[in-house]
Parts: sequence; C-alpha cells; structure tokens
Amino acid sequence: MQLLKERILAEGVVMPGNILNVSSFLNQQVDIDLYNEIGREFFRLFLSSPINKILTIEASGIGIACITAQYFKVPVVFARKFRAKNVENELFCSTVTSYTHGIDYTITVPKPYLKESDTVLIIDDFLANGCALEGLIKLVQLSGAKLAGAGAVIEKGFQGGGKRIREQGVRLESLAIIESMDETGIKFR
Amino acid sequence: MQLLKERILAEGVVMPGNILNVSSFLNQQVDIDLYNEIGREFFRLFLSSPINKILTIEASGIGIACITAQYFKVPVVFARKFRAKNVENELFCSTVTSYTHGIDYTITVPKPYLKESDTVLIIDDFLANGCALEGLIKLVQLSGAKLAGAGAVIEKGFQGGGKRIREQGVRLESLAIIESMDETGIKFR
Repeated sequence: MQLLKERILAEGVVMPGNILNVSSFLNQQVDIDLYNEIGREFFRLFLSSPINKILTIEASGIGIACITAQYFKVPVVFARKFRAKNVENELFCSTVTSYTHGIDYTITVPKPYLKESDTVLIIDDFLANGCALEGLIKLVQLSGAKLAGAGAVIEKGFQGGGKRIREQGVRLESLAIIESMDETGIKFR
Repeated sequence: MQLLKERILAEGVVMPGNILNVSSFLNQQVDIDLYNEIGREFFRLFLSSPINKILTIEASGIGIACITAQYFKVPVVFARKFRAKNVENELFCSTVTSYTHGIDYTITVPKPYLKESDTVLIIDDFLANGCALEGLIKLVQLSGAKLAGAGAVIEKGFQGGGKRIREQGVRLESLAIIESMDETGIKFR
C-alpha cells in the first residue's frame, strides 16, 4: 500500500532492538484518514470472503479494527491480555510468548463472542515474530469458527512470523512488508 | 442517548462489586453502528468547540475515540499505561489510582502529540471514580493545551467521579448516567 509505505519512510524511526517507531501516525497518535485507507484496503483484499466478525487484540489493534469493520459492516471482538486463568469455562484462552518483553501472557475472548458459525478476519497493527497472531488464530480454532485470514498493517519480513504463519496455510495480507531496516533506512519487500 | 440506554437495559449485566458488564456491545465485542451513533452524538455535543485532537486511554477507549474522530476530522492520541518512569523528559506523565484494582499506575503521552496550540476533547467508555479521566485532564494541563471537555459513554452517577470533575469546571458530557443499579435493575438519571 503505497500511501502507507510513504508515510513509514517519512515518519518511521528505526530504534535499537529492531523497533520501528510509527507512533506519530499509527499506534499512539492516529491519522484517521490513513486508518480509513487501511480499512478500505483490507476490505478490498478480503471482500470475497463471507466475513461476519473482525478479531483483534488490545490495545493498538482496536482502532484499526473498528475503522476496518465499518467497510465490512460487521462487529469487532478484541482479545484481552492478562486475565485470570481460572475462568476457562467461560473464555477461550491461549498463551502468547512476547519476545520483546520476555514473558508469557494469556489472551482471552469470552466464548459467546466467537461462534462455530462465524467467519473471522484477524486484524492487527504489527506482525513481527507472529506470536500474538498465532495466539489469535488459536482462539479462532478453539471456537470452531472459520478463519478467513489475517491482515497486518506492517510486517517485519525479516523476522520469522509471517513466513511461519503463511506456511500453516493461513491467508495473511500485510500492507507493508519491511525487508530490512537500520539507522540508514528502511527497505520494503 | 436513548439508543444507548435501551441497549444497556437489554444487554447490560450488573455484577458484584458495582461492575456493569456491557462487553457484548461496548467494550469487548463492539457494535460499530452503535459506535457511530455515539460518535455522532459527541460531535453534536461538542460541535461548537474548535477541537483539533481527541485524547483517550488504552484500551477500550480507543475504538470509540477513533470512530468519533471521523466526525470531527481530527487525529486521535491515546495515553498508554505502565510505561517506565525514566523518560519524563520525553513524555507527559500522570499517576492514576485504580480503585478497582487497588494499584497506582502511570499514564503517558509523548510530548510532541499534545501541543500548547491544541484544543482537546477527551473521550472514554466508562466514568466511575473519575481517576482515569483526571489523569487525562492532568496530561492536557501539563501540555498547556486547551481542554474543550470530556465525553464518557457511560457514567456511574452514584460514584463520585463525574460530580468532582464537573465541580472543577470541566465540561463533561456522559451519554448515559446510571443513578443506581443492582440485580433487580438499572435506573438512569
């Protein structure tokens, strides 16, 4: 998505630890016009699937998922992090390992919000090691719903997540895939 | 806002500890059509103010703020929780006491995202004890920006937050104010 790539080149800041800071327009200060272009592009890509629900994860995925949902005219469900583990009879739960923070955490969705009859599109802002996305895929699988695919705004192609998830047969669409980045610049795939 | 009150009566569940669970349509599973009605109502209420930025707090405020921002045609900034305290030269920080969880936490916004020239509308899903909202107001004050007001989707009027914040002279608009609630029902103000 050209508009997005231009914005990443203009405002993205590569920081130590393979971090790409795009908080000026994507995930802390939010350009709503860009969000709408992103939503429209996800709709174009997944238009042929009978999607009736969008799943994301708190926090920064929520805004993108809500704007995108307007194009699909479907509800959004967001998985929450760090909830107690003693409610597994009411919640779908999966464990996510955060390489960034070096911890495991649990993500959950109340069972009534993901049904066997649903066709789900997963949306998130970033895809790096893919663990959060795999956790969301697990929630969909636990529910018995059909997974239409997953959309990431920015994929760090040089980390393993996207490759591993595509190899599992998941349809994954990333709007900008970063091939490499360092203090001298950002290269897209 | 009648549509919202009807939805609260139809789907809200009063739980122990003064908790109103509206996660089926507001803050975990999200009805985007209702979000749009909420956004339109906030716009109607604050239309006369020269708002150029919406401020909210992760996580469940983000979706409502993004949908609302479409009506104002302004960017959204969201405060993050639990960031390190050693970056106060780059971040506006304020401390929030959570009565629900019995802890203090820090909320932050990078300084470039709140400017003295900004006129800010604060948006959040719930207003109860008002501590999160007071933390957001503090961030606006630290930045020197003008506060146009605050909009809450649901205010628990029987807790002290709304009263205290209005007494500070802040224009606070809540779309549904709950006067009382228990297992027998919910009464609006």
